[in-house]
This record gives sequence, C-alpha cells and structure tokens, in this order.
Amino acid sequence: MAKPVLMVGTTDSFPSIEYASGFRAPDPVVFLKSGTENFLVVPQMEFGRASRTEKTVTVFTPETLGLEGTARGRLGDWTFGLLRKLGIKTVQVPVLFPHGVAKYLEKRGMHVFIAKHDLFPERAVKSSDELRKIMESQQAAVIAMRAAIAYITASEIDSAGYLRARGKIVSSESVREIISRILFEHNCMPKDVIVAGGAQAADPHEMGSGPLYAGETIVIDIFPKNLSHGYWGDLTRTVVKGAASSFMKRIYHAVKAAQQVALSRVKAGVNGSTVHRSVINAFRRRKLLGNHEDRSTGFIHSTGHGVGLSIHEAPSVSTAEGRLKAGNVITIEPGLYYPGIGGVRIEDTIVVTNSGWRYLVPCEKKFEI
Amino acid sequence: MAKPVLMVGTTDSFPSIEYASGFRAPDPVVFLKSGTENFLVVPQMEFGRASRTEKTVTVFTPETLGLEGTARGRLGDWTFGLLRKLGIKTVQVPVLFPHGVAKYLEKRGMHVFIAKHDLFPERAVKSSDELRKIMESQQAAVIAMRAAIAYITASEIDSAGYLRARGKIVSSESVREIISRILFEHNCMPKDVIVAGGAQAADPHEMGSGPLYAGETIVIDIFPKNLSHGYWGDLTRTVVKGAASSFMKRIYHAVKAAQQVALSRVKAGVNGSTVHRSVINAFRRRKLLGNHEDRSTGFIHSTGHGVGLSIHEAPSVSTAEGRLKAGNVITIEPGLYYPGIGGVRIEDTIVVTNSGWRYLVPCEKKFEI
Repeated sequence: MAKPVLMVGTTDSFPSIEYASGFRAPDPVVFLKSGTENFLVVPQMEFGRASRTEKTVTVFTPETLGLEGTARGRLGDWTFGLLRKLGIKTVQVPVLFPHGVAKYLEKRGMHVFIAKHDLFPERAVKSSDELRKIMESQQAAVIAMRAAIAYITASEIDSAGYLRARGKIVSSESVREIISRILFEHNCMPKDVIVAGGAQAADPHEMGSGPLYAGETIVIDIFPKNLSHGYWGDLTRTVVKGAASSFMKRIYHAVKAAQQVALSRVKAGVNGSTVHRSVINAFRRRKLLGNHEDRSTGFIHSTGHGVGLSIHEAPSVSTAEGRLKAGNVITIEPGLYYPGIGGVRIEDTIVVTNSGWRYLVPCEKKFEI
Repeated sequence: MAKPVLMVGTTDSFPSIEYASGFRAPDPVVFLKSGTENFLVVPQMEFGRASRTEKTVTVFTPETLGLEGTARGRLGDWTFGLLRKLGIKTVQVPVLFPHGVAKYLEKRGMHVFIAKHDLFPERAVKSSDELRKIMESQQAAVIAMRAAIAYITASEIDSAGYLRARGKIVSSESVREIISRILFEHNCMPKDVIVAGGAQAADPHEMGSGPLYAGETIVIDIFPKNLSHGYWGDLTRTVVKGAASSFMKRIYHAVKAAQQVALSRVKAGVNGSTVHRSVINAFRRRKLLGNHEDRSTGFIHSTGHGVGLSIHEAPSVSTAEGRLKAGNVITIEPGLYYPGIGGVRIEDTIVVTNSGWRYLVPCEKKFEI
C-alpha cells in the first residue's frame, strides 16, 4: 500500500486538503490520507464546522488526541499525536510541507518521505461538478471581458492620443473597476486583474496603471476565483483602440495563429510538451521566438497550466513531460513580449476530451476596436 | 552576525517576503535577507516588476544565476544558486519553510536551521504608514458593520419570527451581500464575512446561512483585506433583533465587560498573557468560563491576535508569553459560545501605546436593536 499522505497548513497553501476533506481552513490544520480514509486535526473551535463537510473525514482536535498543555498549541504535536493515535510511523509529504514539522516528527522517530510525484493526481481530472464550478468562474470572466472591451471600444481618442469615455480619461484603473464590479456581482474575488497598456504589458504579471492610449496594445487578463466554492477561471485578450502599428499587428496574428496551432494539438493522450513545442515552432517559423537566453523578449513563459482549486495546477503545458487526460482543464495562452514596446497574450481555458477539447465558455477575439 | 534568513514561497504563504521586499509574488520566489541586504530570485517574466518595488532589493532570475536546463524550473536550484552566488553556507528558515527545499540544500552541503523565534519581529510594530493602511481597512469594516446593523434594525418581525425587510426574508446571505458590497466599494476583499445567527454562532468560524430570526444572537465578523496594499482590518459585533433571552443578555454583558477589563490592561510593556488572563478571570468570576477540557462551551479561543499583512500575526494575546509594544496592532475579542444555543463575540482592533491604547477606528456597540 502507498505510504499515508500527510499535509500541514492552510487550504490556501495546500488546496488538496480542501479537495480531499471538503474543509476550508483559514488557519493551519493537519490532514492525513491513509488508504481511502481521511483525517483532520483542527482547533476545537473548528470542530463543528469540520465535522459537517460533505466529504467523509474523521476529525480530531488537540483535546480529543489527548494532548496537554503547550502541546495543544503546536502543529508538530498535533501531527505527532495523530500519527501515534493511528499507529503510523511512515508518511509521505509534498515538497512544500513545513520543514519545522518534518524535523519534529523525525526527532520523534517518524519517517518522512518527500514525494517525487503529485500526491493528488486525481485533482487534474475534473468531475462534472468541478467543471460546472470552473465554468461558473469562466462565465464571470467572459462577461467582465466583454464589458471591458465594450467600454474601450466606445471610448474616443482625444487630440493627445488619450482614450476618453464621456470626457473622462480611460485608464487601467477605470477598466479594472468595470471588470472588478462584474466579478463581484458574480461572487468572484476581484483581485489582481491585469489591464496593462503599452510598455507595461511587456511584463506578463504587471497589473497596469495610468491612462490608456490609442494605438497601444492593452492586455486584459481576468482570473476570477469564486468566493463560495473556490474554483478559478482564466481568460486573456489583447486589444488596441484605433490603429495598431504594423509590427504589433504582425505580433497579434502570430500569437493568435500559435494559439490555434496549440489548440489543434490538444487531445487526451498527447504530451503537454508537444503542445508547448508547437507554439515554440510556430513562433520560430515567424522568427519571433526571441532570445531564449535572456528571456525578456519574445515568448518568455509556458503555453499553459491547469486550472481548478488553484489558479496554477497540474497539468503543465510546458517543457515538462506528461500526457494530457480527458477531463483536464488547461489554459492555452501563448504571448509575445517586447520590453519598452508592449506585449500580446491570448488565453482561453478549455477542457481536454478524448477527441480533442472544448471551450469551457467561448469568448470572441477582437484586436483593433 | 545573525544567520541569513531564507524563505521560499508565495507572499500569501510568507507575507514577510512582501514586507521586506515590497514584492507581491503570486507564484513561489526565493527571498534572502543577509545583514541589511535583501535578495530575491524570481522567474524572468517577473524581473521587471520585482526590480521596480519601493524597497531596496537585489533581484536575480534563474538565468542571471547561471542556471541551465531543468534547474531553471526548480525552486531548490534557484535557492542553491543564490546561496552559492553569495557564498552563503548557513541559513535560518521559518518553521513553515518547504521541507523539500531544505532537504535539497542539506544534500548539497548547506546548513539549514529552523528559527525558534519570529524572523521578522519588526512586523509586529507598525509604522505610521502601516497604521494608515490598517485604518483604511478598519474604516471599511466599520462602515459595512453600520450598514448591516441598520438593515437588521430596520427589518420587521413577521408572525413566524422571521426578520423581513420590504417583505423579503432577512438572511445571513442578504446581510453578507450588504457588507460585501461596501467592502468591495472600499477596494477590500469581500471574503469569508461571518453573519451567523442562533446556534450557528456557536462555531466561531461558521460563516452562517439561511434566515435570521427575532430574539437570536447574530454574530457579525468583518475582516477586510485591502486589495491594493494588502493590510487587514478586523471587527465583530453581536446583535439581537427584538428581545434577547435573559440568558443571552447575561452573556452579552459578560462579554462586553470582559472586553473592557482586557482593554483596561492593554499598555506597552504589559504581557499579552496578562491581558488574556484578565478575560479568563472576568468570565470565571461570572461562572461563565466553560469547560476548559472539552473547549466547546464558554470561552474557547484566545483574547486576540496581531493584525497587519496577515489577519493573524504577532503578537498573540493568549496564554503565550510576550510583552506588548507601542505600535502593536491587536484585536481584543472575547466571546462565549453555547452549542445548540448561540454565541456572542465583541471585537475591536486597536493600537497599543505607551500610555495604553487607542481605537484604529471606533465603532459603537449595540445589542438589542
């Protein structure tokens, strides 16, 4: 039998705890999976809430484990207490498992193995219930994206090249405000929405600030997390108000074509690295790959990632090897970046099927608006 | 000289990275503090953003560390590459440091010590800029609390005992909606707001759901995190629409009195455990302390916690020893809980001063409304 799986932390740090137990922990808890059984150690004040989750899990508290005094307040003792109670001496843990707890267990005679593989590979294959939840977040992203693009489309270009809506300057902030409001209305976290214009968009994670101008590429990346069930969506579009430069037109069409090439490869059984290589080759053919050594210019990130209870989770669509499976939810998001000039990224979130893939929620693509 | 401090993870997992470097990392990064110098290793795509923070920090990428091949994608190699570059062989890490990275460093000849103390104790003493940020979040909590209580106050009690506003049933959800909207308008994360009525409020972290009734205690706990600067606020009130039972009146007044007792003890130089004990003694005198063994009834949590970039941070106002300092921001939040019946909690967030304390943002207390 596989070694019992141990995790210690919040569910933000270890979403697999929430996945397996149904319990969302704002403060650190101990989670153990032994065979098909799940166990939690939670503070006494969380006992009722942890006992009412939809999943089958045996819940302990420091008190029911028989801990006394200061041991009641220490995660190491909670963990040791649980393992002792269950007669377990050997566990496997994820790479990010707390070092302090691992050392404490080892000092008390336990064997702690760092797993080389994903401890919950089943998370990468979504159930229909999970697909429904991700679609709900993706739907919010699509509605917000349409509203943002409609707002920019309806703006006017003033004599200085600023975009104006009803006289007011259109900025990263004003577009983000529109998006955030819609995410909020859909019970999603309005956090870290990217609206980056011009040179700002050359940093893929730059959120963007200040006025938006005619003729520059504007990258809009919306990744809502539903506040009730915790599943994410992910969607990026790049638009230009007015006329784009011929260089940026070339870039946009290269990115759009690369996304199509990648999508045409996606299918259960295909290696994620094959999909990623198809993007690299598409950019290389157009001489747009960039310098792989400095990695600040051209295609500087991977092609995509899994989406679920984490915004970045398995499977990776990158140089990493691994076959896609039916039920994987992944992004396909090639991009090209030019420091001092700008960037273009197009991203959709899709579900892998046996015959190919389908959109979770489709969203049209426009460039010059 | 103290050993260099090493952390590896996201800034959600290790807020001290953001505190020290000014960089918010959605994906894991490597952070090192050696003497007064700060270092970061970030993915190449984050290099520009990390280089532009307000704090002084030297930023590396896997590429500028000279890593090749698969080492460019591994946090262990990033960390080892940084330590090698700086000629560092010994580091100290927090308890929650990733075990996988620690073991990898040890295998390559590094010495990794788990710190027994807080590695950024300075975080517990807030600067005026930090106080301003926490006040901003606390202000949002106060405005949202007033709106929620006004809504419940204005509701009517129907013949079945439900609360109704303009004919519609008042529920945990409808109150939470009002609060969340205001938090959102104040650029705060509208997450996990607690509106728990009756027996639900006997679990301190139960969010609450369903209709609210006349005569039951309703615990409202609002803890907004500002989406721009990341600092939290924290505020709890307990109200009853209509007449409370004489038992719950007694409980409410005991909690309110215990909070006053605790506040009267708060001052720089006083031990946090002294403040906590004053609450225990106040409840004991009224024979309301509860069973400390099963800890499901009575006073089942600590008196308070620090608030800053984390919602729960140092200093603790609990059995843990440690003197309060001027500039600490703490909650004082005694509560009493009765399974099957309900709970009462009153919480304010205050700043400790040399002569006592002051509210960050005061908020009135009402019970029967």
